[in-house]
Amino acid sequence: MKDLTSATGDFAERLRRDLPAAAFREMEPRYLEEPRGRWAGRDGLLLAPGTTEEVATIVRAAADACVPVVPYGGGTGLVGGQIAADLDAPIVLSLERMNRIRKVDATENAITVEAGVILQSVQEAAEAADRLFPLTIAAQGSARIGGVLSTNAGGVNVLRYGNARDLCLGIEAVLPDGSILRGLSPLRKNNTGYDLRHLLIGAEGTLGIITAATLKLLPRPVHTGAAMMAVRDPAAALDLLNLARDRIGEGVSAFELIGRMGLDFLAETMPEVRLPLGTPDWSVLIDLGLGVSGDPQAALEDLFAVAHEAALVTDGVVAQSEGQRRDFWTLRESIPEANRRIGSVSSHDISVPIASIPAFISEGPAAIAAIGEFRINCFGHVGDGNLHYNVFPMPGRSRADHDEDRKAIKTAVHDLVHAHHGSVSAEHGVGRLKVGDLETYLDPGKLAAMRAIKRALDPAGILNPGAVLRAN
Amino acid sequence: MKDLTSATGDFAERLRRDLPAAAFREMEPRYLEEPRGRWAGRDGLLLAPGTTEEVATIVRAAADACVPVVPYGGGTGLVGGQIAADLDAPIVLSLERMNRIRKVDATENAITVEAGVILQSVQEAAEAADRLFPLTIAAQGSARIGGVLSTNAGGVNVLRYGNARDLCLGIEAVLPDGSILRGLSPLRKNNTGYDLRHLLIGAEGTLGIITAATLKLLPRPVHTGAAMMAVRDPAAALDLLNLARDRIGEGVSAFELIGRMGLDFLAETMPEVRLPLGTPDWSVLIDLGLGVSGDPQAALEDLFAVAHEAALVTDGVVAQSEGQRRDFWTLRESIPEANRRIGSVSSHDISVPIASIPAFISEGPAAIAAIGEFRINCFGHVGDGNLHYNVFPMPGRSRADHDEDRKAIKTAVHDLVHAHHGSVSAEHGVGRLKVGDLETYLDPGKLAAMRAIKRALDPAGILNPGAVLRAN
Repeated sequence: MKDLTSATGDFAERLRRDLPAAAFREMEPRYLEEPRGRWAGRDGLLLAPGTTEEVATIVRAAADACVPVVPYGGGTGLVGGQIAADLDAPIVLSLERMNRIRKVDATENAITVEAGVILQSVQEAAEAADRLFPLTIAAQGSARIGGVLSTNAGGVNVLRYGNARDLCLGIEAVLPDGSILRGLSPLRKNNTGYDLRHLLIGAEGTLGIITAATLKLLPRPVHTGAAMMAVRDPAAALDLLNLARDRIGEGVSAFELIGRMGLDFLAETMPEVRLPLGTPDWSVLIDLGLGVSGDPQAALEDLFAVAHEAALVTDGVVAQSEGQRRDFWTLRESIPEANRRIGSVSSHDISVPIASIPAFISEGPAAIAAIGEFRINCFGHVGDGNLHYNVFPMPGRSRADHDEDRKAIKTAVHDLVHAHHGSVSAEHGVGRLKVGDLETYLDPGKLAAMRAIKRALDPAGILNPGAVLRAN
Repeated sequence: MKDLTSATGDFAERLRRDLPAAAFREMEPRYLEEPRGRWAGRDGLLLAPGTTEEVATIVRAAADACVPVVPYGGGTGLVGGQIAADLDAPIVLSLERMNRIRKVDATENAITVEAGVILQSVQEAAEAADRLFPLTIAAQGSARIGGVLSTNAGGVNVLRYGNARDLCLGIEAVLPDGSILRGLSPLRKNNTGYDLRHLLIGAEGTLGIITAATLKLLPRPVHTGAAMMAVRDPAAALDLLNLARDRIGEGVSAFELIGRMGLDFLAETMPEVRLPLGTPDWSVLIDLGLGVSGDPQAALEDLFAVAHEAALVTDGVVAQSEGQRRDFWTLRESIPEANRRIGSVSSHDISVPIASIPAFISEGPAAIAAIGEFRINCFGHVGDGNLHYNVFPMPGRSRADHDEDRKAIKTAVHDLVHAHHGSVSAEHGVGRLKVGDLETYLDPGKLAAMRAIKRALDPAGILNPGAVLRAN
């Protein structure tokens, strides 16, 4: 790997000959910051190309001159993938001007969008065509599709519809040598060689820059409904999930586990949020979307009756209106805000095998007990084994009191996740935050193969250096 | 790339020191032949390792000595991926002894199996755990999971459940340097680095040898049903598919298009097969699997009524019993046998964007008219855009009369597929049959990146040389 250089004045001058003026933007602080303030870029040449060919021109020039390129989507990533704090003036390549919806085809059930399109705009375009684009994440109002795919975003509907990669039929990307991978396609069956789409999805801009994608559209559920049920314990939540899927099939759109701590935090910090079941130790939010002859309310009432008979649930309420369903979701979606108001010491985006969730939850407190006294709020997408595992100070203490403990807590939680064959990055990606975790926990065979692929496709190491794999 | 050598007596002798005697088998002709008789291997050292470590030992030795390794699953592949006709005595590495089901977990909804497990055994193990493994292909009684994944097999249920890759949660594989990729995992959300699982799936044994996989299990539909409907034309079939999915959601398990020629062939060669609608120009077989409160018969009758009102369908029959549903499927599944009895000149495993199916079907006859007079039987998984497009001699002539035409027909059909942005290999893979097609039709950016990845992971080019990419 050669030494990387900076996007100096000379380099920028040369680029000005090959790119329209609109591609050059004044650098602004927001391109050098990220939501949690853990990394800050020093400076950079901000470029906002308007076409795939312009992206290719930039990457080709960067490859020639060994100038690093940091791709920038909506800037909502939580792991520092979009901020190269250790680079001196890289190119910051924003996809914001590539924001065209190229094609919506309801017959094909596919939409082709450029990388800079905001996730919510894809959802809206799908709805306008009487279709559903099901990917739903908290940052959907600002996250851009290129970043959503590059980080393989998840969210609450993964149980039914899969992660971002499962919703992508084809991609167009600029590879590290500046060549263009023209893989936009709505094809459902296509076995013509290696699946580079899935290689670039989740690669966080280190193997190529996604410039456009063809995404799946799905039928919009005709009837929706939701229920909250108090469950005996986390194991009962799993049994309830399987019971629900056995009876209702793919109609189960989301299945969220909520621990008592989250409800207590809501009661303390956001008393306006309604808690329909009070504060049971463990409860679940179940969301259904059914076809024309489906009756979600009846299905949920039936599920509750069967689950109650089996002693899985102790209490429950089925939404009687769309408004009540929204209230349930408001509760669930307010938990992260309540967490912020309490102030976590440490938060973890982890997953474990679904069947291991009860053991993981029960072993968690002991794993960190030696470090100090803490409160744990564990909640999340139990249908995917994806838990948000957040550690808080005891009442009367603050997160600042535990600055020294953060690293030990993280190690203890990640070690426990690893012991359960789980993942230390479930849905947020690796970025720059978890490069060391990958080196600690990842299968060495996988890590070596990843490095070989990175070297093969990006021999100069210009694309997002330091993200996912350590730059060296 | 170094010159490859043969698995000579000396090489075998050295291997005998490191492997148990059970791993050595007498070569038999069946390992050197394939179903359509297009390729025949000359000879080879047949090895049947019993463990992943033994596979690694073999591949390491092969890499050291530059001996090519041809992985062998169930031998059912139709594109010559399992037969290296141009190699002198490679290792033929059969996974047949790695046939353990390592774990079935109904709570986790996952099954972990070794590569040599027969597909049908996976289906049966799932059923015994009251779960569904939905992948269904004609060769399921002999195809082994390693081959099913390496070719990313498809089948009739892709519309609902996806291709083989979509049903795989994790893989274990031996990489070309003999290292082991330990990626068995039931995790649904795991964003820790590049997705090597999807890179190896569909790579046809050229980037690694899959030794085991963790596969998704799904809820078993409680109520199933089927209907056959005569449609106005192929465009009406697409509208009917979307109507069905809008009303019934994911409950639509299969949606098969059947052309009149297929029904005529059945009437001529297999008169015992019942044709419930006679011989309409175009008809579809719709299969449903619904949850506990679903009523497939009512849903299909409702669909027919709405579709008839919209003038999409002209006739229809809803199965009144499981026996009648099986009759419908017997009809569909007998078409390939009827094709064999008629004797095709040329058959094509292709896909086009779903919305392009009507145009493709209408342009097909003109595309081959200049070559001669033919009969076309077009049928297949219209919900995936995957058509089996088979060309037959006119009555009174035989396939042998057209030996000279085969190549021209193939070129004409593939050119038309390419013009519609389709795929010349929808579900069977590339193997050795379509290496040239890839060079002709594949995006050059993709082909170059594939070659770079192959060189990076397999610098000596020992794994299945000549499959997917030309050996050179």
